Amino acid sequence: MELFYSQDIEGTLLRLDEEETRHCVKVLRHRTGEEIFVIDGQGRLLKCILTSTAGSRAQAEIVERTPSWGGHPYHLTMAVCPTKNNERFEWFLEKACEIGVDRIVPLIGEHSERKVYKTDRARKILVSAAKQSLKAAVPVIDEPVSVKAFLKGFESDSLRLIAYCFEDETDLRRSINDVLAGLPKPDTSEATLHKPDASASAVPDIIIMIGPEGDFSPEEAHAARAAGFLPVHFGPSRMRTETAALFAVSAVYQHFV
Amino acid sequence: MELFYSQDIEGTLLRLDEEETRHCVKVLRHRTGEEIFVIDGQGRLLKCILTSTAGSRAQAEIVERTPSWGGHPYHLTMAVCPTKNNERFEWFLEKACEIGVDRIVPLIGEHSERKVYKTDRARKILVSAAKQSLKAAVPVIDEPVSVKAFLKGFESDSLRLIAYCFEDETDLRRSINDVLAGLPKPDTSEATLHKPDASASAVPDIIIMIGPEGDFSPEEAHAARAAGFLPVHFGPSRMRTETAALFAVSAVYQHFV
Repeated sequence: MELFYSQDIEGTLLRLDEEETRHCVKVLRHRTGEEIFVIDGQGRLLKCILTSTAGSRAQAEIVERTPSWGGHPYHLTMAVCPTKNNERFEWFLEKACEIGVDRIVPLIGEHSERKVYKTDRARKILVSAAKQSLKAAVPVIDEPVSVKAFLKGFESDSLRLIAYCFEDETDLRRSINDVLAGLPKPDTSEATLHKPDASASAVPDIIIMIGPEGDFSPEEAHAARAAGFLPVHFGPSRMRTETAALFAVSAVYQHFV
Repeated sequence: MELFYSQDIEGTLLRLDEEETRHCVKVLRHRTGEEIFVIDGQGRLLKCILTSTAGSRAQAEIVERTPSWGGHPYHLTMAVCPTKNNERFEWFLEKACEIGVDRIVPLIGEHSERKVYKTDRARKILVSAAKQSLKAAVPVIDEPVSVKAFLKGFESDSLRLIAYCFEDETDLRRSINDVLAGLPKPDTSEATLHKPDASASAVPDIIIMIGPEGDFSPEEAHAARAAGFLPVHFGPSRMRTETAALFAVSAVYQHFV
């Protein structure tokens, strides 16, 4: 199933950007009057009829909207320190989107080797991963933020977890499995998966912090605990930053789906 | 913690190959009399004292052996069709090793775009992933085998799962979570993790088949079911081959650890 992406929508009129138009008209040779499927990045699948393929921006009329298409019954924010090797973080973005994530926050930690992160490539990767894995919602990626700034103010009803490797005085960390096992599983019926807004407070809101290669500093871990983050570990295996981050996404998906 | 890898062991005498010697002596500048740690790839961590750094192959004396170091309380075989893009499969190898896998079988399916797979690069990737993630056992990688050949004869006590995307007549597939939830969790105490042979029949033996981009054929799925493989699905998300394979490894690790 071929999907296009557009956020240029007015009523039932939809326009593809130049790149999507090229792919739709030049590569796939779609013609006026043909049916195409477009995701709006907000969770809606739009069934459209092409009304104009002339020029650099094709136009289509929306004939059907499917809300929360390809959604999941939780809202997951992954706050992860980008890896020194950018490919590893971009790989995480693609895989996390395929499995099911809603928001990515690039964190800059005290021990981060990468202090600067540009999000434009990340957005492209997330759009194509969403299209490839048949999800109408494209995960949001925030601009990078320091751990300290990130920790300022959270909704009280979110489950907040922080993973780190060093041992606390009295090891405070619990297995992520034990923490997840304590959560109620929401109704995963189609109805739930297709609720208009997958990020509605009706679905559990989970935020997980993953540190850089050098791990979070004890001060950062302490600040996170003070902000209501439960310290967790992922068992005996020692995982790279991007592997740990994807494992956390898998664990949440596995629990709720 | 810096680890070296060697399988050249006679009694308490251990030799590093040329590449490991170069890294140990030229790069890290270790000298005779110094302590190094070596994994034997079979699950043992070897504490050694360098006895010779001259020439192209350093020698060391083994002073301490730790069995099943960095092990996990299950034995997992992932039989996965290599992806058309080899990087994606190699990425899976590294991540699966980090999380915890014991054996990889490159499968050639009817719908495989990649009919040929060379395992020498894979072995290097698995060795470095094992060293990087502090595991003394390097996952074994078999030579590629066709799905039909792979399905000939299995130990009766292994849990065998096959994941595919097409819907059976009467959809036979169960959620991998439901299947895993039915399994007893072994004792994950240090004692268990450190049992001399992590692949001993005392730990659960699990085999999971993951198809190519084009999925398994219905005939292959049928043959697998006839060979005692339970059909499973991974929930609503549509994952690429390598993502599905890593998700399965994560799910098994999450269940047992």
